[in-house]
Amino acid sequence: MLTDIAKSFQAAKRRYDRGQYALAHCFEVSFECLEALQTNANLRTFGNFTLAGYSLPYSVADSGERLSRPFHPELFIADPEVFKAASEEVADQLGNCNDVDPNLLDQVIYTAISAFSLSYDLWKPRSRKTPSTFFEVVIGSASHIIFPHYALTKHIPIKDVGAAEPVDALAKTEVGDAGDDATEFSGDSVSTDLVITNPQTEKGAVVPLKITTRERIVQPFAHQRILDSAYPGQYASFVSCISEVQRDDATTAVKQICVPGTVALFQKHLAHIKGLYYCDIPRRYARYDFTRIIPVKPFHALFTDIADHLKAD
Amino acid sequence: MLTDIAKSFQAAKRRYDRGQYALAHCFEVSFECLEALQTNANLRTFGNFTLAGYSLPYSVADSGERLSRPFHPELFIADPEVFKAASEEVADQLGNCNDVDPNLLDQVIYTAISAFSLSYDLWKPRSRKTPSTFFEVVIGSASHIIFPHYALTKHIPIKDVGAAEPVDALAKTEVGDAGDDATEFSGDSVSTDLVITNPQTEKGAVVPLKITTRERIVQPFAHQRILDSAYPGQYASFVSCISEVQRDDATTAVKQICVPGTVALFQKHLAHIKGLYYCDIPRRYARYDFTRIIPVKPFHALFTDIADHLKAD
Repeated sequence: MLTDIAKSFQAAKRRYDRGQYALAHCFEVSFECLEALQTNANLRTFGNFTLAGYSLPYSVADSGERLSRPFHPELFIADPEVFKAASEEVADQLGNCNDVDPNLLDQVIYTAISAFSLSYDLWKPRSRKTPSTFFEVVIGSASHIIFPHYALTKHIPIKDVGAAEPVDALAKTEVGDAGDDATEFSGDSVSTDLVITNPQTEKGAVVPLKITTRERIVQPFAHQRILDSAYPGQYASFVSCISEVQRDDATTAVKQICVPGTVALFQKHLAHIKGLYYCDIPRRYARYDFTRIIPVKPFHALFTDIADHLKAD
Repeated sequence: MLTDIAKSFQAAKRRYDRGQYALAHCFEVSFECLEALQTNANLRTFGNFTLAGYSLPYSVADSGERLSRPFHPELFIADPEVFKAASEEVADQLGNCNDVDPNLLDQVIYTAISAFSLSYDLWKPRSRKTPSTFFEVVIGSASHIIFPHYALTKHIPIKDVGAAEPVDALAKTEVGDAGDDATEFSGDSVSTDLVITNPQTEKGAVVPLKITTRERIVQPFAHQRILDSAYPGQYASFVSCISEVQRDDATTAVKQICVPGTVALFQKHLAHIKGLYYCDIPRRYARYDFTRIIPVKPFHALFTDIADHLKAD
């Protein structure tokens, strides 16, 4: 089922890795996923997320054999042709430096990443890391257009750490899904999903891109603390996420897996993060008592906030 | 195979959880594991760890159906009766506040934990967390004897973090092995394996107990940084580990999974840890260029170093 989609994704990723324009190619991959879902799966209501009287319905893709992760139908453009038009509009507006309709941007990003994730859930469930890679390529490709004069990388070198063997054994070892983030620390650098640097101001924006943060939320804060120590005042982190949700099949309810206490603890005592960015902000992260500790914003604010941080003083 | 052993372990753990003497009961569990291994498995040579001319042979337990993790035969007391005598001597010496033969202590601790881990590898491989729990109960039980007037806990409350819901959804959710450490951060506290506090000096020793650290090594450093921020000068971390090794079945070689560059980076830029403590110090962590950045010591130094930190000034 996914052979052609996987090929299209690899082609888009190769373009991105070479520094070529790739955003429209990514959206084309998502369009193919939406077509596959339309033809071979049933997008249906699954159940609600509920919290203190608040209730939000979620859907799943159902292949008959498997259920996908839950998705938020209001943000999801299920019709492939409607998505095609919307994504082309977004790509055009970004390419021409025009203001993009913020809600449209959020919907297109959410749909692009979700369509890919749902397809992999149904037809390649063992490739758990691939949707994260796609998320990285989509946002990296968009950044490439929005910040044509800034450098896009994945690593920030940290010098003079002192160990003779900065290349760690673990970084070279396949440790499976549990080792997802093993390579995020390699001894002589901080490695993340996307770093955008303004060569004039030497300021950098660190953009961790996470499909569900779960317990790995410690890492962006640890990174920021290390960067504060090694390069005071130079780097800021913009943690960009999608989908902190989980199916509960026993009750056909949806859980939003949130750790507001932990994030608040990290923000106060580990390092200061510029903000959390979501298309689908989890309910508990939207509360005032949380957002006064750490800003939580819709995804469309990400690029503006990064631009503000990187600009010359 | 493991039914009786699991029962003995649960009985020892219940004693420990109630604050009763449990060290001899833990060693009895290890004795039962050694008997099971002697009767139902073959402890045989597996292959060597090699690095730049240095070579160290490792063994495995082989049940015919499964292979265990590798273990270091020089540190492992395979004969149940010899272990029984040695562990009784260690328990007696600790109980009478006598000096313990440091090499005997290292061998008894290494054997106690390894015998349990090997048995679970062969006969209950899906209970991946249980050997870590056993490690915690053994070292906690020993600490109970060595520090009879100090408080043993697992949590350090962090006040005034500001989020209204300090109890996080994730902490209450079963997330499987990938979520191993999810509960180590709960929003209103730092939670670790063992905290030893001197009520007179209010100083505390944080003792993370890890069977293989892997990518989770970031957590002890993040904890220490949070404690430095919340309680300056009060807490110190003593990271206690066993077995950073992995079988490579294709080459019948053993890998020591080490991240010296990452640890050096954390020690310099994230937080300062008192030391790493191992029965089986990995080769790359024993090198001078590494130990001048972070002390790496045999396990028997752990209790002395903790006592030094906790004593009145």
